[in-house]
Amino acid sequence: MTGAGELVSAFIAAIESKDLEQVIGMLTDDVVYDNVPMVAVTGHKGVRQALSAFLDSATAVEWAVSRQTESADGTTVWNERVDRFEIGGRWIEIPVAGVWEVRDGHIALWRDYFDLGTFQRQLEG
Amino acid sequence: MTGAGELVSAFIAAIESKDLEQVIGMLTDDVVYDNVPMVAVTGHKGVRQALSAFLDSATAVEWAVSRQTESADGTTVWNERVDRFEIGGRWIEIPVAGVWEVRDGHIALWRDYFDLGTFQRQLEG
Repeated sequence: MTGAGELVSAFIAAIESKDLEQVIGMLTDDVVYDNVPMVAVTGHKGVRQALSAFLDSATAVEWAVSRQTESADGTTVWNERVDRFEIGGRWIEIPVAGVWEVRDGHIALWRDYFDLGTFQRQLEG
Repeated sequence: MTGAGELVSAFIAAIESKDLEQVIGMLTDDVVYDNVPMVAVTGHKGVRQALSAFLDSATAVEWAVSRQTESADGTTVWNERVDRFEIGGRWIEIPVAGVWEVRDGHIALWRDYFDLGTFQRQLEG
């Protein structure tokens, strides 16, 4: 059985591959994806809509994880990342801290903390 | 010897007490305090300047930790919090994810991820 940390690493690899079906298959039916400065969405449909918006606009996606910790009980994963998106020929970079809950081998919660202005200024710049 | 998670909890209690000398005493000499959307400061002098600015302007400080995880090797602590500041008779609330490194019973790194706009809009509102 895959550990929670390995599941989150595989999920991030699927995001980088822009493989939305693989991404959705790693989530519980009632998953919550909470982009803290923006909105929280629920369920496969909500995540699909939220992710397709930015995965479609990016020609390449690289999420560089600098640190990741799994809780002793194996249910929670934390990571620090720099999420990079190539959009319109330029790379946009956002420092992110994520917290993830894993249940029955699937991601049940994915909450990302970041500065929305850091993203918006690069998008407009 | 106090565990890393307990040290971080005691540090947050000292922040809430606005006891700057106690806060500084919990840090390594070469501490890095990295407010991700803003700046990183280094050393006791840097932290003292950064913290006194907002502790002095707040009449009350409450940091509500909703989740905290210590790494298996006891060197790293992660937490999710809502940091609340009473400023000018109003409460300002900021969701934060923090990552902390502990060395020899002192905090060596304190890095907070949050949305600066969430803070600024409440300050101006």
